[in-house]
Amino acid sequence: MRAMALAARRAGRELASRSGAERSAALERMAAALDARRAEIQKANAEDVAAAADLVAQGRMSEALAARLPLSDRKIEGLVEGLRTLAAADDPIGRLLRKTRLGEGLELEQRTVPIGVLLVIFESRPDALVQVAGLAVKSGNGLLLKGGKEALHSNRVLHRVLAEALSPLSPDVVGLVETRSQISELLELDDVIDLVIPRGGNALVRHVQQSTRIPVLGHADGVCHVYVDKAADPAMAEAIVLDSKTDYPAACNAMETLLVHDAYPHADALVAALKRAGVRLYGGPHASRRFHLEHVEDFHHEYGDLAASVALVGGLTAAIDHIHRYGSGHTESIVTSDPKAAEAFLARVDSASVFHNVSTRFADGYRYGLGAEVGISTARIHARGPVGVEGLLTTRWTARGSGHTVGAVTRGDWQFTHERLV
Amino acid sequence: MRAMALAARRAGRELASRSGAERSAALERMAAALDARRAEIQKANAEDVAAAADLVAQGRMSEALAARLPLSDRKIEGLVEGLRTLAAADDPIGRLLRKTRLGEGLELEQRTVPIGVLLVIFESRPDALVQVAGLAVKSGNGLLLKGGKEALHSNRVLHRVLAEALSPLSPDVVGLVETRSQISELLELDDVIDLVIPRGGNALVRHVQQSTRIPVLGHADGVCHVYVDKAADPAMAEAIVLDSKTDYPAACNAMETLLVHDAYPHADALVAALKRAGVRLYGGPHASRRFHLEHVEDFHHEYGDLAASVALVGGLTAAIDHIHRYGSGHTESIVTSDPKAAEAFLARVDSASVFHNVSTRFADGYRYGLGAEVGISTARIHARGPVGVEGLLTTRWTARGSGHTVGAVTRGDWQFTHERLV
Repeated sequence: MRAMALAARRAGRELASRSGAERSAALERMAAALDARRAEIQKANAEDVAAAADLVAQGRMSEALAARLPLSDRKIEGLVEGLRTLAAADDPIGRLLRKTRLGEGLELEQRTVPIGVLLVIFESRPDALVQVAGLAVKSGNGLLLKGGKEALHSNRVLHRVLAEALSPLSPDVVGLVETRSQISELLELDDVIDLVIPRGGNALVRHVQQSTRIPVLGHADGVCHVYVDKAADPAMAEAIVLDSKTDYPAACNAMETLLVHDAYPHADALVAALKRAGVRLYGGPHASRRFHLEHVEDFHHEYGDLAASVALVGGLTAAIDHIHRYGSGHTESIVTSDPKAAEAFLARVDSASVFHNVSTRFADGYRYGLGAEVGISTARIHARGPVGVEGLLTTRWTARGSGHTVGAVTRGDWQFTHERLV
Repeated sequence: MRAMALAARRAGRELASRSGAERSAALERMAAALDARRAEIQKANAEDVAAAADLVAQGRMSEALAARLPLSDRKIEGLVEGLRTLAAADDPIGRLLRKTRLGEGLELEQRTVPIGVLLVIFESRPDALVQVAGLAVKSGNGLLLKGGKEALHSNRVLHRVLAEALSPLSPDVVGLVETRSQISELLELDDVIDLVIPRGGNALVRHVQQSTRIPVLGHADGVCHVYVDKAADPAMAEAIVLDSKTDYPAACNAMETLLVHDAYPHADALVAALKRAGVRLYGGPHASRRFHLEHVEDFHHEYGDLAASVALVGGLTAAIDHIHRYGSGHTESIVTSDPKAAEAFLARVDSASVFHNVSTRFADGYRYGLGAEVGISTARIHARGPVGVEGLLTTRWTARGSGHTVGAVTRGDWQFTHERLV
């Protein structure tokens, strides 16, 4: 495993040293290869799909999981299109972030560079392999991928097709890992792997976070809140609350807890609307009494389903305290027509995304206009909230001089000017 | 310990919610209090200095360590001045990084915010307490501080003076921790503490890195290289190599390994100059034969002293391979008059700082013009190289709309425009 990770690092460095045009050409070759070898890919995929159908029939796999496996023509076309869009996008590597003239003839630059080696662990959907490989090539990173065993045949053929397309440049840049024991070994390699990105359910993310010292980009929980202020417009409150909960209840940016100001005049109608939409509600002490709800067991809970907690709060500060106490720092929204309450909420809530009169479902890399989404991070370092390809970059400092020494500064031969050029 | 960390988080949030002017006023109060209570501070400091003198006499403490303890008038004046400079600097919080109109009436912003709670562990120098507390207040972060036991009395009085100056705003924002067992407990609190910054020797940093899942900002090793190319100007090569090694041999940015192109015509003179400067040299197989040096045991070694490894290499690629194999990713420099070799070195060396014709000693936050230095990071995520106050910040996304739902986009009521405003 160490040899494989070191090979990915070497290959990533090689890839990063090429021009953006060469990386774009590699992405075009990947797209063309996927397109040309569609039959071979779909044949392997059919094996996984058939095996999954058997497991579903035996009750050993959920239908939802099995439904994510098939690589239809439309899905493959989407992947080809996605790789071509990445190929056409601006080169993210080498972007100048800062330039300073430290003194006469001595200039310092800070530019974006790839992080190094990424380990991406995903479940079920084999199309994720292609998307992540594309992002890694675009950003010049070495990549180790581990897919779910239910997609083993699909992943193998996709990996082979992409590696062959990459081989003129750097075939080792994407490595495929197949077993759980290999993952355990990789999670130990904090000196070679720089970032782990688990793309899957809470259990996977939590397991990864607890099993490694390598930084993890992602989030285990999405306990998102909507706070309906006493000055909320009732139609807007209902639209935002329903969208936040019911648009896609399994998403991490779906509302899990509704906080309602206890002086909001339309609280009963709002709760009734949620019930009509089929949402099971669990209330805190006041809410369960007032709205006749079952008691909530723990406000820090992600239902991931048509269900939500409800709490009545005494005002803005109580709402924010509730969010800080029980939330996961993912996404929260206030609905109010009071600009002071809105601005206080936006200023004080300590979450990755904080909204005013907007559904929590907007917390998403595509909706934010970031292009491809690497994941949504609730961590407070490196990248926070929806993360685009920029989350796969770090920076490097370079300086060009002509014999500059610190001793000469000490002797007074020259002085720092620190003139900021960029 | 958890209660103390949670108090620091609450206090940090409170501090961050105030205006930049209020944080600057707090820094001014801290400066004034230090100045006014100088006698009380120096009395406590004298106890530590006397105890250290006894330990030095008994051979139980190094003179170097003891020398860092005294809080002279000049040191206190420097600290007061430093806090006032921080107070006058621009507010780093709330800086607008990105603004996008997602669609009609829906605007998204990304702004800088504090990370949350920092744990800073430092050794010996009590002045570090004041510097770090100043940076935490400026950046709106809660702070837990652990100083060395040799500076216990000094740290206690400094903490008391600063906490009193902060008390109108947020006295809990800086917490002082005194024992090792408390540190072990704090390092477990990865759900409350967001970043650990160990400021001290390699052993401390390594211990912290191996004891926590909290992200660590810093570096355990500084195995920096200077590569003297065959086309190097001999006077410049000598000046840069000597400065990199001898200006301050204990610094993390000092040269530990000299790489010399085997066709560099002035290699013998360069090695002789290092020997004349009192530098003990240890060679790889070729270098030890050619220059009559003791054999090096391990090229991944930080001497931190007037000593260095020397290796003869066959050219640029061999030099870069050596750096990637044995280096620590801190700082490397090439000396050459060949612009192609220089640009290839700058492009390909995968370290935090990479220089051309510049001493490695320039890798430093002050010399880079970053203002106060939080530390030098060799990690590849969050912050890399010398880190200023920006390394204590993360970002947050806010969106303002008027009832925007994702369902309305799906129904075709409106479309994303993703117009980038900033």
